[in-house]
Amino acid sequence: MPYINIKVTDTNVTNEQKKLLIEGATELLMNILNKKPETTHVIIDEIPIENWGFNRKQFLGNKK
Amino acid sequence: MPYINIKVTDTNVTNEQKKLLIEGATELLMNILNKKPETTHVIIDEIPIENWGFNRKQFLGNKK
Amino acid sequence: MPYINIKVTDTNVTNEQKKLLIEGATELLMNILNKKPETTHVIIDEIPIENWGFNRKQFLGNKK
Amino acid sequence: MPYINIKVTDTNVTNEQKKLLIEGATELLMNILNKKPETTHVIIDEIPIENWGFNRKQFLGNKK
Amino acid sequence: MPYINIKVTDTNVTNEQKKLLIEGATELLMNILNKKPETTHVIIDEIPIENWGFNRKQFLGNKK
Amino acid sequence: MPYINIKVTDTNVTNEQKKLLIEGATELLMNILNKKPETTHVIIDEIPIENWGFNRKQFLGNKK
Repeated sequence: MPYINIKVTDTNVTNEQKKLLIEGATELLMNILNKKPETTHVIIDEIPIENWGFNRKQFLGNKK
Repeated sequence: MPYINIKVTDTNVTNEQKKLLIEGATELLMNILNKKPETTHVIIDEIPIENWGFNRKQFLGNKK
Repeated sequence: MPYINIKVTDTNVTNEQKKLLIEGATELLMNILNKKPETTHVIIDEIPIENWGFNRKQFLGNKK
Repeated sequence: MPYINIKVTDTNVTNEQKKLLIEGATELLMNILNKKPETTHVIIDEIPIENWGFNRKQFLGNKK
Repeated sequence: MPYINIKVTDTNVTNEQKKLLIEGATELLMNILNKKPETTHVIIDEIPIENWGFNRKQFLGNKK
Repeated sequence: MPYINIKVTDTNVTNEQKKLLIEGATELLMNILNKKPETTHVIIDEIPIENWGFNRKQFLGNKK
């Protein structure tokens, strides 16, 4: 009964990509740990780009 | 000093229901573990329905 | 399909109390939001007391 | 390679304040644990004020 | 710069399986969202089996 | 009423360092967002080094 949380910046993740992330993450747990898909939850959090810091700056700031 | 995080899909949770969730979760910790309400925090995360995967599909996809 | 995470300090939470927390939290979601127990997960994290800070001090430090 | 998550209510946190939080949190880990900024991530979550409960009430409710 | 958190019960996850989970999760983000492995973090939490509730019972309780 | 979660690898974080992290994180929120220390919680999670992946490998694996 795994729970997988994927946090990415909110930069145009399409619905198709969300489907693929959910499928891929669930299958990873099926293949490696024999977990059942019926009890596997995946939550994708899209973090506003200005709320994600990396290397002491807003992700935004790193882009320049 | 407990911290409780409730994640649900963002499907019309009313303000009244949020109040009841906060009250209920705080009282659960008071009753079972004798925790003080003044140090108990509850955070409700409403997850966009297309970002929650279950049984290898978007929650959305399961609805059909 | 809610997910509930309860964080408390690791101060002798008994197995019986864990059962009651899981039951209570699941029923809260059933009663208030009509969520099904079969898709409701509860995770209890017991945090070492010296790793929880509150009011600028280790929880430990507040006990004196 | 630390990961820091800061949750605050969504009450007008300015972009300037976000920058300072990211800088400050990263430097805290550099100064105290010698962590490298290049592998330190900070995520700020702004929680809707009605979704944060404290002392058995919505944060909102405490304000009156 | 994604962050992936995988929560599973603490039932003998081997070091080899941890490596495969980390690799697989990182590659998922590379393949689907073009994220760089150098900024992708994966954290595996192994939750004590009696601390994970599902269907109103400890995971333990469901096993009988 | 902020909540700050600091995740680091479990590599000999001393009690003194934990105190400084808690103090520093609380003061950061006081100084930048005017948050009260009495409602600020800090939780430090020490992640087993083999459970933290970075750049597609266990943190361990990167050390060689």
